[in-house]
Amino acid sequence: MLAFIVSNKKLKVVEKPLPKLLAGWALVRVRMAGICNTDVEILRGYHDFRGVPGHEFVGEVVEVRGVSAAVGKKWNRKRVTGEINIHCAAFGYKPVCEFCQRGLVTHCARRKVLGIVGQDGAFAEYLTLPIENLHGVPNALSDEQAVFVEPLAAACEILKQVRVEEFREAAVLGDGKLAQLIARALRSVLPRVVMYGKHAEKLRLARAAGIGTWKVRGDAADLKKIKEQYRLVVEATGSASGFALAQQMTEARGTIVLKSTFHGAATVETWPIVVKEITVVGSRCGPFGDAVRLLRSGEVGVSDLVSRVFPLREAAEGILFAQRSGVMKVLFAAGGEKI
Amino acid sequence: MLAFIVSNKKLKVVEKPLPKLLAGWALVRVRMAGICNTDVEILRGYHDFRGVPGHEFVGEVVEVRGVSAAVGKKWNRKRVTGEINIHCAAFGYKPVCEFCQRGLVTHCARRKVLGIVGQDGAFAEYLTLPIENLHGVPNALSDEQAVFVEPLAAACEILKQVRVEEFREAAVLGDGKLAQLIARALRSVLPRVVMYGKHAEKLRLARAAGIGTWKVRGDAADLKKIKEQYRLVVEATGSASGFALAQQMTEARGTIVLKSTFHGAATVETWPIVVKEITVVGSRCGPFGDAVRLLRSGEVGVSDLVSRVFPLREAAEGILFAQRSGVMKVLFAAGGEKI
Repeated sequence: MLAFIVSNKKLKVVEKPLPKLLAGWALVRVRMAGICNTDVEILRGYHDFRGVPGHEFVGEVVEVRGVSAAVGKKWNRKRVTGEINIHCAAFGYKPVCEFCQRGLVTHCARRKVLGIVGQDGAFAEYLTLPIENLHGVPNALSDEQAVFVEPLAAACEILKQVRVEEFREAAVLGDGKLAQLIARALRSVLPRVVMYGKHAEKLRLARAAGIGTWKVRGDAADLKKIKEQYRLVVEATGSASGFALAQQMTEARGTIVLKSTFHGAATVETWPIVVKEITVVGSRCGPFGDAVRLLRSGEVGVSDLVSRVFPLREAAEGILFAQRSGVMKVLFAAGGEKI
Repeated sequence: MLAFIVSNKKLKVVEKPLPKLLAGWALVRVRMAGICNTDVEILRGYHDFRGVPGHEFVGEVVEVRGVSAAVGKKWNRKRVTGEINIHCAAFGYKPVCEFCQRGLVTHCARRKVLGIVGQDGAFAEYLTLPIENLHGVPNALSDEQAVFVEPLAAACEILKQVRVEEFREAAVLGDGKLAQLIARALRSVLPRVVMYGKHAEKLRLARAAGIGTWKVRGDAADLKKIKEQYRLVVEATGSASGFALAQQMTEARGTIVLKSTFHGAATVETWPIVVKEITVVGSRCGPFGDAVRLLRSGEVGVSDLVSRVFPLREAAEGILFAQRSGVMKVLFAAGGEKI
C-alpha cells in the first residue's frame, strides 16, 4: 500500500505491505485524514516518532479478525473514525497495567498512539486499530466533517474536565485549528467566548461562528496591555508564549486549561499561579461521542476550517502547504485508489 | 520605634514613629517574628517592596481604635498572630471589590499584604493590622510555636484545596522551612509522605518527624533517575528546577500543588502537563485556625526547625545568617524592649 513516513523532517512516500491484524483488530481503508499540529511537531522531532504519522481520519472497515460473526457483521464495511490511544489489553498484555485497571485507558502505561507513539497512523491507504477504538460515523456526517471528530473530541475533553456550566465566559488563546474547535465547543455551552489570536483572517472565521475576537500583535508590550480577566482561559496557541499570557489573563482562583503540546521548553514565571491560586488543567484526548453529537446537531460547524484537500499521494506537498501562514486544516483524500 | 527597612538588598535599621491606627485596627507590639524565604526574595527585588518586611509574627495587642468597649476589652493585651492579607473593606473602600463581594478576601483586588505589598510588616517593634485579621494565641502555645502559625496555615491551605484523604501518599519536593511544614501537615492526614531534598541534615529533621526522605544530588542526570510516581506532588523547592521534576514525578491524572514563589523565570517544558492531564494547583495563604489546632494537638511539631533566635536590633545580621546553607527558621525576639 501507499504510505508516508517521517524522514529528515519531511514526509517521504514508501510502498508498505498491508498491516497485519491481531485478534480483535480491524483493518481500515483510510478515506480521509487530517493534518494536526502534532504531525508537524513530529516532523520536528516530537516523541522521536518514526513510522507513518496521522491520527485524524475517517475510513471504512475492510477486515476484522478474531471476533464473532455478529461482531464482524456489525463492523464490516462500516464507515468509522477511531480513538488513537491503544491500551495494553489490545496487545494481549495480562495483567493489564495499573491505569487500565483503574479505567484510565487513555493513560495506559504501555499505550501506543496512532501515528504518534509506536503505531503506524493514517497517512497511508490503510491503518489498523482495535475494534473497541472504533466509532461508527452516522450518514448525516460527510467525510470532511467526520475527520474532525478526533480533534473536536479533544476540545470536548475540556467540557468533561472543567465544570464549564459554572462559568459565563471563557477566553481561548490561539486562533489555529485546535483553538477554533475549542472555541466552538465552549460556545456550545457558554454565552460568551473570546478568542485571542494574531491572524485577522482566522479571527474572522471565529467571529462568523459566534466567537468574540481580540487581535494581538504578540510583542511583550502589546501583551502587557491585555488587562481582561477571565475565570476560565484555554491555552491553545501551540507556542511557548501562551502560558505566560494565560496566567496574566486568569483571575484569582481561576482555571487555565492547557492544550498546547509543542516541542521544546518555554521560559515562564510560575509565581502568578501560586499568588493567584490558579488551577492549571492539562487536557489531551476526549470523548468521540460528544464530538459526533456536536457535529451532527450543527452546534459546531467545521466546513469553513478546511483550507485544502490533497490526494494522499501528494501528502508530502500537503504537509508543506499546511505549514504556510494562514492555512487552517489540510486534508488528504484517498482519491479513489482501490485495493 | 525600632524598625528595619529594605535598603540595597539588606535590612537597614531605622527609627520610625508608631504607625497610625485606622478605625477597626489594632496596634500590636511584636513579641517574635520569623524570616520566610519571601523576605529574602523581597531583599532581591520581589514585588519591588519598600518598607518594613516580615509577615510571620506573634505579638500583643496594645491599642485598638474605633471599636466598642466590649470588642476593645476582648482584644486588649491579647497575644495574637495575624492574617497577612488586608482586604479593601479594612481601608474603608465602598463598595468593596468583586473578590471581597465573593468572599475571596485573600484575593482582594486592592489588598495590601503585611510586609510584602504596601503595608509595613513585623521586623519592627510594632505593627498594625485590622482586628478581623487577628487570631488569639492559646496559652498552650509558646511564642516560638505561635510564630509558625502563618507558614503552617499556608501548608494547611493544601488540605483545603485538594481532597488529600483520597490519596494514600504524597511527595514533597524541597527540604526547606515551608517544605518541612507542608510535609508535616500532610503527614497528619496521610500514612506516607516522602520528602525529596538536597540537604542531609534537613532530611534528618524530616525523618525524625515521621517523613520518608530521598536525597537528590540535583544535577540533570541524577534527577532523571527518579522514577517514582505519585498522584500528589507538592513543589516547595523555592527554586526554578522544582516544577520540571514535579511533572516528571506526577503520574497521569495526578495533582501538583505549587507553593514556590521565587523571583524570576524558569525554563520548563509544559507538554507533560497536557499529555499526562496533570492538574496544577497554585496555593498561597491558608487557614490560621487549622494551623493553631495542629500545633496545639502536637500533630505538628516545630521546635526542631528553629536554627537561631536573634534580638530584633540584630535583624540585619539575622537575615544574613538565615541565607546560610543549612539554616532553617531564624526568629527575631523583641528582647525585652518596652514601650
